[in-house]
Amino acid sequence: MPNVPAHSWGLEQIVADLRASREELHRTRHPLGIRELPSRDAVINIVAGLRAALFPTHYGAPDLTDETVDYYVGHTLESTLRLLAEQIRRALRFLPEFGATPDAELKARAFNVAREFGTQLPAIRALLVSDIQAAFTGDPAAQHITEILLCYPGVWAMTHHRLAHALHRLGVPLLARFINEIAHSATGIDIHPGATIGPSFFIDHGTGVVIGETAIIGERVRVYQAVTLGAKSFAADLDGTLIKGNARHPIVEDDVVIYAGATILGRVTIGRGSVIGGNVWLTHSVPPGSSVSQGKIREGERGDEGRG
Amino acid sequence: MPNVPAHSWGLEQIVADLRASREELHRTRHPLGIRELPSRDAVINIVAGLRAALFPTHYGAPDLTDETVDYYVGHTLESTLRLLAEQIRRALRFLPEFGATPDAELKARAFNVAREFGTQLPAIRALLVSDIQAAFTGDPAAQHITEILLCYPGVWAMTHHRLAHALHRLGVPLLARFINEIAHSATGIDIHPGATIGPSFFIDHGTGVVIGETAIIGERVRVYQAVTLGAKSFAADLDGTLIKGNARHPIVEDDVVIYAGATILGRVTIGRGSVIGGNVWLTHSVPPGSSVSQGKIREGERGDEGRG
Amino acid sequence: MPNVPAHSWGLEQIVADLRASREELHRTRHPLGIRELPSRDAVINIVAGLRAALFPTHYGAPDLTDETVDYYVGHTLESTLRLLAEQIRRALRFLPEFGATPDAELKARAFNVAREFGTQLPAIRALLVSDIQAAFTGDPAAQHITEILLCYPGVWAMTHHRLAHALHRLGVPLLARFINEIAHSATGIDIHPGATIGPSFFIDHGTGVVIGETAIIGERVRVYQAVTLGAKSFAADLDGTLIKGNARHPIVEDDVVIYAGATILGRVTIGRGSVIGGNVWLTHSVPPGSSVSQGKIREGERGDEGRG
Amino acid sequence: MPNVPAHSWGLEQIVADLRASREELHRTRHPLGIRELPSRDAVINIVAGLRAALFPTHYGAPDLTDETVDYYVGHTLESTLRLLAEQIRRALRFLPEFGATPDAELKARAFNVAREFGTQLPAIRALLVSDIQAAFTGDPAAQHITEILLCYPGVWAMTHHRLAHALHRLGVPLLARFINEIAHSATGIDIHPGATIGPSFFIDHGTGVVIGETAIIGERVRVYQAVTLGAKSFAADLDGTLIKGNARHPIVEDDVVIYAGATILGRVTIGRGSVIGGNVWLTHSVPPGSSVSQGKIREGERGDEGRG
Amino acid sequence: MPNVPAHSWGLEQIVADLRASREELHRTRHPLGIRELPSRDAVINIVAGLRAALFPTHYGAPDLTDETVDYYVGHTLESTLRLLAEQIRRALRFLPEFGATPDAELKARAFNVAREFGTQLPAIRALLVSDIQAAFTGDPAAQHITEILLCYPGVWAMTHHRLAHALHRLGVPLLARFINEIAHSATGIDIHPGATIGPSFFIDHGTGVVIGETAIIGERVRVYQAVTLGAKSFAADLDGTLIKGNARHPIVEDDVVIYAGATILGRVTIGRGSVIGGNVWLTHSVPPGSSVSQGKIREGERGDEGRG
Amino acid sequence: MPNVPAHSWGLEQIVADLRASREELHRTRHPLGIRELPSRDAVINIVAGLRAALFPTHYGAPDLTDETVDYYVGHTLESTLRLLAEQIRRALRFLPEFGATPDAELKARAFNVAREFGTQLPAIRALLVSDIQAAFTGDPAAQHITEILLCYPGVWAMTHHRLAHALHRLGVPLLARFINEIAHSATGIDIHPGATIGPSFFIDHGTGVVIGETAIIGERVRVYQAVTLGAKSFAADLDGTLIKGNARHPIVEDDVVIYAGATILGRVTIGRGSVIGGNVWLTHSVPPGSSVSQGKIREGERGDEGRG
Repeated sequence: MPNVPAHSWGLEQIVADLRASREELHRTRHPLGIRELPSRDAVINIVAGLRAALFPTHYGAPDLTDETVDYYVGHTLESTLRLLAEQIRRALRFLPEFGATPDAELKARAFNVAREFGTQLPAIRALLVSDIQAAFTGDPAAQHITEILLCYPGVWAMTHHRLAHALHRLGVPLLARFINEIAHSATGIDIHPGATIGPSFFIDHGTGVVIGETAIIGERVRVYQAVTLGAKSFAADLDGTLIKGNARHPIVEDDVVIYAGATILGRVTIGRGSVIGGNVWLTHSVPPGSSVSQGKIREGERGDEGRG
Repeated sequence: MPNVPAHSWGLEQIVADLRASREELHRTRHPLGIRELPSRDAVINIVAGLRAALFPTHYGAPDLTDETVDYYVGHTLESTLRLLAEQIRRALRFLPEFGATPDAELKARAFNVAREFGTQLPAIRALLVSDIQAAFTGDPAAQHITEILLCYPGVWAMTHHRLAHALHRLGVPLLARFINEIAHSATGIDIHPGATIGPSFFIDHGTGVVIGETAIIGERVRVYQAVTLGAKSFAADLDGTLIKGNARHPIVEDDVVIYAGATILGRVTIGRGSVIGGNVWLTHSVPPGSSVSQGKIREGERGDEGRG
Repeated sequence: MPNVPAHSWGLEQIVADLRASREELHRTRHPLGIRELPSRDAVINIVAGLRAALFPTHYGAPDLTDETVDYYVGHTLESTLRLLAEQIRRALRFLPEFGATPDAELKARAFNVAREFGTQLPAIRALLVSDIQAAFTGDPAAQHITEILLCYPGVWAMTHHRLAHALHRLGVPLLARFINEIAHSATGIDIHPGATIGPSFFIDHGTGVVIGETAIIGERVRVYQAVTLGAKSFAADLDGTLIKGNARHPIVEDDVVIYAGATILGRVTIGRGSVIGGNVWLTHSVPPGSSVSQGKIREGERGDEGRG
Repeated sequence: MPNVPAHSWGLEQIVADLRASREELHRTRHPLGIRELPSRDAVINIVAGLRAALFPTHYGAPDLTDETVDYYVGHTLESTLRLLAEQIRRALRFLPEFGATPDAELKARAFNVAREFGTQLPAIRALLVSDIQAAFTGDPAAQHITEILLCYPGVWAMTHHRLAHALHRLGVPLLARFINEIAHSATGIDIHPGATIGPSFFIDHGTGVVIGETAIIGERVRVYQAVTLGAKSFAADLDGTLIKGNARHPIVEDDVVIYAGATILGRVTIGRGSVIGGNVWLTHSVPPGSSVSQGKIREGERGDEGRG
Repeated sequence: MPNVPAHSWGLEQIVADLRASREELHRTRHPLGIRELPSRDAVINIVAGLRAALFPTHYGAPDLTDETVDYYVGHTLESTLRLLAEQIRRALRFLPEFGATPDAELKARAFNVAREFGTQLPAIRALLVSDIQAAFTGDPAAQHITEILLCYPGVWAMTHHRLAHALHRLGVPLLARFINEIAHSATGIDIHPGATIGPSFFIDHGTGVVIGETAIIGERVRVYQAVTLGAKSFAADLDGTLIKGNARHPIVEDDVVIYAGATILGRVTIGRGSVIGGNVWLTHSVPPGSSVSQGKIREGERGDEGRG
Repeated sequence: MPNVPAHSWGLEQIVADLRASREELHRTRHPLGIRELPSRDAVINIVAGLRAALFPTHYGAPDLTDETVDYYVGHTLESTLRLLAEQIRRALRFLPEFGATPDAELKARAFNVAREFGTQLPAIRALLVSDIQAAFTGDPAAQHITEILLCYPGVWAMTHHRLAHALHRLGVPLLARFINEIAHSATGIDIHPGATIGPSFFIDHGTGVVIGETAIIGERVRVYQAVTLGAKSFAADLDGTLIKGNARHPIVEDDVVIYAGATILGRVTIGRGSVIGGNVWLTHSVPPGSSVSQGKIREGERGDEGRG
């Protein structure tokens, strides 16, 4: 940068270069200007508000009593649903079918989606209670329900997932994805909002768990850290663009247990009651009651082992 | 919800349904009302205060000098131990033996626990210094002690663990668990507060590491990312409830190295000086000086491989 | 603690013990007092400012228009580069060659480094745009560019990496490391700032990915969660201290895909267009077009499988 | 300070001197240690909460509707009254009669006071509505009720006063005084919580208004800025300590107007419907229907006038 | 409240009483529901933004340089005018003529008002510079321009007034009033936004100054604390409602000085170059060059004086 | 602005006009660029820190005990004096004699001033204790020392003044002025930092009190709201610029009482033990033991009185 004066940042040039860079991308990708993006901070507040409304004695205000809890829940719900409706409105605008909808109409639709979402909250709470009870049953280290509700990353992730899944089904995938990624960042558990998960699901430890968009999981399933329920490769689709949205992740039937590090890929079915061992790599279906585990290891004296 | 007016959330019904859902769970689980839960935010502040008191030049106030550092440490300790005593009081209430203890007595006990914890801080600091030096010795990319203290997730996690372990031993498991989960969320390293870990322990990278409640780790042990020291399955215990608290995680003797992704399960012993290779799945003991590595891989030309 | 009065913390003794502990470590490690450490909070704000300047419509102020965006970018850049120069100054002081540089000279050098960094931002933006497009091409679940930019942890991590790598090359490794660890904590993706990564790089899911200091990655490479590009053991170096900085991580050529959980160690080369299967443990080079996958698994009926 | 080392603050000496200074005052004034003082910040939040509960559409949450407003008011009241009970407890401890009351008993009393205070809120609201309507009637510049409620310092001060007066009457003078001073700082209007003020009271502009502890003001009274309703001197009482609490401030009957800067002192009575002119100094009673104004001014050409 | 249970607040009854109280007032005053009120916090931020744009080296970002100041000013203006347009929109809704204007139309009008306001900022800055210079000339204690700009309450109040007056003239009286009251609370200086004030106006000390809606003040006028330029009584108008908006405050011609505590009332004219002494009460016009001062005081020995 | 496009703010023109306006003022007033201004927020924090160090049980941390209070005071002092030294450095730069002092030298001088200031704190505390006791003695409404320390605006203002006066004497007038104006804004009491005030000074109510730069006040003086101790006019000096700094405000001897609204102007002396009545306008000296009060008022029936 020979001709920039000594105490200058050379801002004018950088600003111009960045503008040129933006214009190039936008020309190809955003024919229309984007106005209002969903706000990650707002979504974090919305999830916190919903969690407080669902579990007011654990995540709501302190010292709530029988006299006061419904005022708290009612007010929290209202203010949270209102925030949610606004974020839904912004997210809907990204869907091709609402790209040109008039503002007032989109706002009304967003309100209706938020209202419908509100009516599903008691059912979502019932599912989460089943997950909490599954954790209590499934982990010998668990002391009481409060510990599970406040400290278990699997329960934290499932709270996000069950809320995100409801929004996904109500037609707001972008917002659902935000909720998913907030939980992913906090827990290392990455569940796509589209995944369908039955009651009494328990994820222990959780870091590195990946559950794909079209996975279907039955009742009373238990998975450990670093389990992947993923898709196989998409080599066949490569005539230019990927085929999106088709069923490509596993079906896991009731009462299956999948141990740490197992990777299950493709639209395979893990039959009811099967046990998948740790670190297994599995790309085909197994019948009910199967037991799958890793091959032999090699043992010897200390020598040229690798590290990570 | 056909009969909800157009601009209404239908709050009254949702509030009533959520109340019904709460009452069902509480009837079975919480015969006594819960008053004051430990606060996650308070625990975060407590750990920050303790870290600042332990390492004031790195985590305390800027520009501390020989004249001023003890005022800083003394004041920080006092305000932090006071906050800690309050959270201990709340956590103790969850233990069956203190469910009916009078408030003043519980408060006094919490104060005593916090005071005893305070006296252990110099010893905890010495352990952490040994961990930092182990990182400096063990990682060729480490530049200096400051980088390790400020940037290494393994050191961050061990700071939380050594504080949590002391609280666990002093009879406050719920608070210890909070501390563990705060580190787990920040680092992806999940060490149960009950685990016993010797000096000079080094975790590199760390994401996905899981160390169980009854694990015992010797001196100068090194583990890499995604290592699990877990329990085997509990099938035998299933006459209704799990047996809790029994020794079910590995013993790792001095000078062992465990490479990335290795999974060691059950009350097995990894003999002194052994090296466990990456991605190994190990469920039996190995003698001192062992070397364990994964079996063969299959190589070929590019074809139908899976993805995650 | 027999002689501490009843309502006292015994602070004086703890403060004295901690001082003794500090003095011991400092005597061996810090012959000179440390004055000003780089601030993690400042670095977080700097990265946020740079992200806003690079992608103002997604991470900047709301409602920016053609009339206003350059004012925003220019002001954001200036205030961010100023903060950066201050943090660079603090970080440079840790390098042996600048330990005794006069303050004014170090400040001038830090300013020059920040200015040079600023001029690289348009090129960094171009690389990030290629990464975003690679994600859109490579993930069948991706809906649009906005979703990728706001929700994909791989893109978040690469934004941190490309900024950190530039600082690393400009001679500020400590600050680069801070940026890396902030992303590591948020995403579970741990890329050393020294790693060299070509355009159009896509990390899917990402939790547990580790990429070492001397790794070199070509164009259009795709990796999935829990992939490690690490070093082999350093046994040969153990005459006391490790040899630091030598090339010890893999070279990955263009168009390679590495599936979840694969671990590649040492200065090996993965030839152009190869596919490395999930959970594979690989410590030797493979020629272009290779396909590598895990060995057989063992199947049977449900028995005594382990858990994590 | 000759013997303080060059880069030292001399802290040890200052700390010792301040300790000596504290011990001197405390020995004479505070035989018992003070534990918990009422918190000014808490009181600010309490007044904000009460104002929101009283006027939810102006000071509560945005977008409240018929469906949601009662949830908001109920929740706000509960959380505010709970905070208030805690501050009442602290303030009661300062009263001689509660200096030795057991904690639990004081807590119960504070709860009862807060509850009783809560039941008075609708009546307080009615008084404030009369004040707002008096402002609308009395100020030719007033545009609408919203402007008065949001912008008039006299209404702000009266909101504080009517709340403080209720607490004063319920036996919590210290907390009432806090509320008074918060308004005094914001508006320059200083009304002692003990003053008795009838409905439809209007203070215009307000800066410098002082209304003393035992003042009694009737209905529909109007005062302007810098009006004092104070006490005469206490010369007679000076045998050592002042006589506290006796009636020593004016009685102002219904429909009186007092213009800017008027000073009325002592237990005098301003008869119904009187008008007191600006800057008047008045220390005796006047009958109903009186008109009082300042004496002559002196006019001339520009010369040696003073300034302030 | 005899039948409220022991540990209850009696919330249901209070909530119902408050609702009844609200409904009574609203029925008479607000036939239409109020949706969005202007926000005091937003207005505070807007004034801070405008002040920063007007005086960037004193109230803007630190370390602005010739290269960077225009980016700062441009960005600050844009974000502030955008916030202002939103508050204007809310305030306009309170005007009878815009009560039923469609949202989009009102929004466009608010944008236009904010844009027009923006174009007036350079002229407003010139007036403020003249005020600052008048303070420097008029106060023997003033050290330099920076002290005046940062510390003089009169300058602070005039900054608010000149901005508020522009908005008042542009037809947004409610927002102007907010700005006035924010300054009134901070300084004790109460200038109605409608008042017309010429350049080089200096208010010293300022507490208690009141300047009414229709006052007109010439160039180079100086006033001290507690000066009132008010209206006379409105007795004649009392056939029910006050006549609003007519000229009822003083005209003060160029080069007049008004000393502390002077009260001037009614549509009188203070001729050019006059000096009005402290504490004077003046309700008639005086010719140019007049000098007005208070009458005699009474002196004696110490006796029965009053207090405030 | 006819040629501004429809959806544009016309920013470019406004930015250019503001730049032109700035350049005009700066050319005449600031030949050198200003770099770092003292920060009002920093000064607010400094005063809060000093107040906490002076009165730790009332303004410091809660629950301080004999064991912990000195740690608190020592740490608070250190961090506050450090902040103060930085603000002193910035303020000194504005003094002509330090305009060209090298940075390091100015920093050292600022440190020395802050250190000297620190040593004066115990003496400042003793003066404030005398003021508090004077309030307790002088106000029949005062209940206890805590009420006075926490609620009396006169004590709040004197705390600021005594700190500001010490800084003023140490040669940092700009910082002293900041402290004065912060108190002025909060209390309506405007005491110039240069004023010399003896112990046991009591200001009751306080709004509108003005005490000028060269005023000298003895021991046990009491003043009420709206009292001015000001300067007479400066007509004689008007050959262009005012003479700055000469003695021009009153001397008030010991044991004087000045009632509300009294205005005393010029270098006059109010003799020991005098009583000055409310609203008096006094521009000449009075001997010890004097009593001064206002002239007659005019009384009649209700008629044509003015308003404010």
